[in-house]
Amino acid sequence: MEAKKANIFSPNSPGQNVNPDLDIERKNISFSIEHLTNILDGGANNTKLRREVEAVLEADPEFSQENRYFQSQNERYESAVRKTVYLFQKVAKMGWIEDGPEQHYCFKFLAEDLAFNLHVVFMKSILALGTDEQINKWIPLAKKIFIIGTYAQTELGHGSNLRGLETTATFDVATQEFILNTPTLSAMKWWPGDLGRTATHAVVFAQLYLKGRCYGMHPFIVQIRSLRDHSPSQGITLGDIGPKMGFENIDNGFLILKNVRVPRENLLAKFSQVLPDGQYKKQGSDKINYLTMIVVRVNILQSSIIPCLMKACTIAIRYSVVRRQSELKPGDPEVKILDYQTQQQKLFPQLATAYAFHFTCNYLLETFHRCYNQTQEGKFDLLPELHALAAGIKVIITDYCSAGVEVCRRACGGHGYSLLSGLPSIYMKVVPSCTYEGENTVLLLQTARFLIKCYGMAQMGQPLPSSVAYFSSVNFGKCQAQEEKDFLNPDIYTDAYKHRAFRLVFRRDAVPLVDAFDFSDACLNSALGSYDGHVYQRLYEWAKKSPTNHQDDRVFKTYLKPLFQNALSKL
Amino acid sequence: MEAKKANIFSPNSPGQNVNPDLDIERKNISFSIEHLTNILDGGANNTKLRREVEAVLEADPEFSQENRYFQSQNERYESAVRKTVYLFQKVAKMGWIEDGPEQHYCFKFLAEDLAFNLHVVFMKSILALGTDEQINKWIPLAKKIFIIGTYAQTELGHGSNLRGLETTATFDVATQEFILNTPTLSAMKWWPGDLGRTATHAVVFAQLYLKGRCYGMHPFIVQIRSLRDHSPSQGITLGDIGPKMGFENIDNGFLILKNVRVPRENLLAKFSQVLPDGQYKKQGSDKINYLTMIVVRVNILQSSIIPCLMKACTIAIRYSVVRRQSELKPGDPEVKILDYQTQQQKLFPQLATAYAFHFTCNYLLETFHRCYNQTQEGKFDLLPELHALAAGIKVIITDYCSAGVEVCRRACGGHGYSLLSGLPSIYMKVVPSCTYEGENTVLLLQTARFLIKCYGMAQMGQPLPSSVAYFSSVNFGKCQAQEEKDFLNPDIYTDAYKHRAFRLVFRRDAVPLVDAFDFSDACLNSALGSYDGHVYQRLYEWAKKSPTNHQDDRVFKTYLKPLFQNALSKL
Repeated sequence: MEAKKANIFSPNSPGQNVNPDLDIERKNISFSIEHLTNILDGGANNTKLRREVEAVLEADPEFSQENRYFQSQNERYESAVRKTVYLFQKVAKMGWIEDGPEQHYCFKFLAEDLAFNLHVVFMKSILALGTDEQINKWIPLAKKIFIIGTYAQTELGHGSNLRGLETTATFDVATQEFILNTPTLSAMKWWPGDLGRTATHAVVFAQLYLKGRCYGMHPFIVQIRSLRDHSPSQGITLGDIGPKMGFENIDNGFLILKNVRVPRENLLAKFSQVLPDGQYKKQGSDKINYLTMIVVRVNILQSSIIPCLMKACTIAIRYSVVRRQSELKPGDPEVKILDYQTQQQKLFPQLATAYAFHFTCNYLLETFHRCYNQTQEGKFDLLPELHALAAGIKVIITDYCSAGVEVCRRACGGHGYSLLSGLPSIYMKVVPSCTYEGENTVLLLQTARFLIKCYGMAQMGQPLPSSVAYFSSVNFGKCQAQEEKDFLNPDIYTDAYKHRAFRLVFRRDAVPLVDAFDFSDACLNSALGSYDGHVYQRLYEWAKKSPTNHQDDRVFKTYLKPLFQNALSKL
Repeated sequence: MEAKKANIFSPNSPGQNVNPDLDIERKNISFSIEHLTNILDGGANNTKLRREVEAVLEADPEFSQENRYFQSQNERYESAVRKTVYLFQKVAKMGWIEDGPEQHYCFKFLAEDLAFNLHVVFMKSILALGTDEQINKWIPLAKKIFIIGTYAQTELGHGSNLRGLETTATFDVATQEFILNTPTLSAMKWWPGDLGRTATHAVVFAQLYLKGRCYGMHPFIVQIRSLRDHSPSQGITLGDIGPKMGFENIDNGFLILKNVRVPRENLLAKFSQVLPDGQYKKQGSDKINYLTMIVVRVNILQSSIIPCLMKACTIAIRYSVVRRQSELKPGDPEVKILDYQTQQQKLFPQLATAYAFHFTCNYLLETFHRCYNQTQEGKFDLLPELHALAAGIKVIITDYCSAGVEVCRRACGGHGYSLLSGLPSIYMKVVPSCTYEGENTVLLLQTARFLIKCYGMAQMGQPLPSSVAYFSSVNFGKCQAQEEKDFLNPDIYTDAYKHRAFRLVFRRDAVPLVDAFDFSDACLNSALGSYDGHVYQRLYEWAKKSPTNHQDDRVFKTYLKPLFQNALSKL
C-alpha cells in the first residue's frame, strides 16, 4: 500500500509503468497521435522545437512548479519575479533569438509562473503609438528590463467605456510639461498588472487638456517609482489591489496622480503632437492600431485560452479511464467512469470543441494576415469585418472554454476541487478572459452592430463582406400578421402597455427585492454590495489592508535593483 | 477625492449617507421590504431574533471578518478554530439554549469562519446509529468539545459507490476487538473535514468481516489522536489533503489505518450487533436514517446554498445601480448599468430564482414533516417519493445556484474577480454543493429511476404518489413508425450497426485525442491527469508536501488542549 517513491514531478516517460487501463486505450487506435500533434503544432519541425524548449525548461530546477499550489499570493509574486528575471538570462544563454519561436514556447509553457506581463504591453504600446525617437529611447531599456513598464488604462470607475476615463493631463506652456491628475476617487488607475509592486514606468492614459479644451484620451509615459530605491515618484500614490480569483503571480495595482509633471516629449506622439506653444496637431491614421489589438486578442485565444480547455479535457479524460466506480451487474468489476454515458456526454463535446476552436483560430489568423497585407497597400476595407469576426469569435471561445473547463472539473467529482488536480487553477485562468480584452457582452453588441449594418446593406442590394455573404441569399421571414385590422385592435395596445407597466414595476423593485433578503454588510462582506453603495471607497480602503501592501523591499533589492541600476545613467 | 475614513467594516446604518442612486431605487416601491423579509424569515419574531443574534456577533471583535480575504490556508484554519471555541463559550454566556434558533442563526451567519463542521456530523451519526449506551457515553463529551470527531466515509478511490469502500474491520474473538485496516492506497480515507489537523475521534466506515465473511459497511468509533499531546494513535497515519477550491477554513484530511484495534462496543450498534462469539445480529429498520440524510440535505439548501444566490444577487444588483458606464446619447450622463437590458437579462432571472427556490425548499420541508409523522406511525410509503423529490430538487437548486452566482459575479465585470467583491468566495462556497451530499449526476439518475418506476405503475393502472399523479392523465406519444414493414428493411439495421460502430470507435479514441495535445506532466501539473495515470499516488504524495502538514502544534496547545483535558479522565 506504500505510495510510489519515485520523483512524481519528473517528466513523463511514455510507455513506462503506465496504468493498464490507460495502456489499453492507447492500443488499436484509428490514427497516428504523432501526426495529429504535428498538425496542431503547425508542422513536425515545430513539434520538435517545442519539445526541445520544454525539455530545457523542465530540466532546470529554477523553473520547478512543484510548490505552486501551496504558495501564498506573496510567495507566488516573488517566485514569478525571480523566474522571469532568470528566464531573460536563460534565453540569452541559450542563444534563442529575440521574439523567436523558442521564446514563444517559453512564455506559453511558463505563463502562470511569470511576472512582467504588462511590461510586454508597455513595450507594444510604445512601438505602436510612439515616434521613432521615443521608440529608440525607451525600447532598448525596456527590452533588457533595465526599466519595467505597465499599461495604466482601466480606472476604478471605467473599464469598457474608455472615453469616460477621468484622469487628466493639462499642458503647462511655461514649463513645457504635462500635469497629470486623478481628479476623483473613481479616476484612480485600478487593475494594471505589474503596477502594484513592480513597475518603474507606466503608459498612463489621460484626457488631454490644452488651453482649457479637452482633446480626448492620450498616452503619456510617466515614471512612477525611483530606479534607485523603488520609492513612489513625487505626487504618486500606488499599491497592490489585493487578492483576486487566480493570477496570484501578478501584482495588479492602483495609481493616484497628484500634480505629476512629465516633459512634453513624454506624450506618445506618433498620431498626435502637442507643439511647444500648446497647439494640437493630428497626423497619420491610427486605424492600424486596431490590427495590433486584434492580433493580441487572437494570440491570447490560441496560446492561452484554448489550451486551458485542452488541458482540462486531458486531465478529465485520463482520470475517467483510471477512476472506477460501481459495477453494472452485481459481482462484475467496477466500471471505468468514462464508460458511463453520462460521463461521455459531459466530456466528449468539450474535446470536440477544443479541436474545433484550434482550427477556428487558425482561420482567424489567416483572415488577419489577409487584412494586414491589404492595409500595407493602404486598403482598410476588410477591417470592419475582421473586427466583428474577432470580437464574436473571442466571445464564443472564451465563453465555451470557461464553461467547458468547469464541466471537465466537475466531471472529476470531489477530486476536481483539490488544487492538486490542476483544474481549479485552469478555471481561474480561463474565466477572466470573458471579461478582459473586451468584456463579452460589449463585444457581442459590437458584432451585432456589424451584422445589423450588413443586413441593411443586403436589403439595399449592396455587396457584402464574404463572411456574411449569405445575407443576400437568405429568404428572411416576414411578420406573420394575420390581417391589417389586427393592428387597429385596442386590446393589443392595452396588453402592450400592461406588459410595459409590469416590466417597469419589476427594473424599480430589484434593489428592494434584494434588500428584503436583509443581509447586513458584515454578512455580505463585499466591497461591491454593501447597503450604502460606497463601492469604490471600500475597494480602495480594503485593498490598502492587503498583506501585499505590507511587505519589505526584498524583491526589489534582490531581483530588480541590479537591473534598474543600468538605466540610471540613461534616464 | 480622499476616500471616506469611517470604519467601513461597521454594520450598515440604513438611510444614513447612502449613495443617491440606491436611495432613488428604494423610493416609491410597490411593497413593504420589512413585510417580505418577515415572510422569508418565517415570521416577524424570527426576523427580530435573527437581527438580535447578528447584532451580538457583529459587535464582538472576536468575530470580525475583516481579514478573511487576506489570510492563507493556515491562517484561515487557525482563525476558524479560535472562533469556534470562542463561539461555544459565547453561546453559553448568552444563555442561548442548545440547538435553539439563536445557535442556528450563529452558524448560518459565521459559517465560512467556523471549524468543526464534521464534528456535528460525527454527533449526528452517533445519535442516529448508536445504542442509548453509546449515545450516553460519547455525546456529552462531544457536545462540550472535550473530544472532536469526524465522519470518515469517503475514500481516495470511492465516493458515490459506498458499497465499494475498501477499509476493513475484522473481528478478533480472542481479544473482543475489531482490527481496522487500509488494505490499498485507494482505500485511505480522503476528504473528511476536521480530520486533517483537528479531530481526536472518527466514525470510520469499514467492511465488517466475521469469520472470513463480509457483512458490508458498518460504522466504528476510532480514536485517531491522543487527547494528551494530539499525536496520532498507534497504527494511524493522517494529515491534511492540502489546498482546495474554497473551504480554506476546513482541514480536510486523509487517514490510513494499520492494524488499529478498537473494542467490540465501538461498533455503532443500533441496527446491527456483533455478539461476543462473533455472531452477527441485525435489529430494527434503518430506513429512518434516510430521513436524517434527507433533512440534512434540505437544511443545507435552505440555510447555505440558496443564501449564496441571494447574496450574489444582492451584491450584483446594488453594484449595478451604483456603477455607471457609457452614455446612451452623446452628452447625456453615463447610465446605471442596471438600466441596460443586457444586465437585466443577466440578473433578474437570478433574483426571481432565488425567491422561487426559497419557497420550493419550504414545500420540501413540509413534505418531509408529513413523511416523518407517518414514519412515527410505522408507515414508510412516502419515503421513496420524498427521496426522489429531495434528490431531484437538490440537483436543480445546487446547479442553478452555482450557475446563477457565476452569472452575478461576471455581471460585475472586472471587479467581480476581486476577492474583495465577495463574489469569488461565494462561488467557491456554492459550487461544491453540486458534488457533496450526493453527486448531482448520480442523484439525477436516482430521481429518474423513481420516475421510470412510476411510469411503469401508471401504464399498469396502479395508484401513483401525489407528485407524479399527472403520469396517469398524460397522453404519452407513441412511436410514429410509418409501417410495420419498415422494421423488415435491413438498411435500418445496417445504419444502426454503423452508428454503433462509429460510437465505439469514438468512447476508444478519447485518450489518444487528448494525448495528441501533447501536454507534458510538468505542463499539466495535475495529480489527476498525468500521462501514466497514477492518480492516487500523486494525490497522496503531493498532499504530504502541503504547508498545512508542516505546522507546529500551536493551534492544539492554545485552543484544543485545554478542552481535551476534560475528557482524559473519562476515556
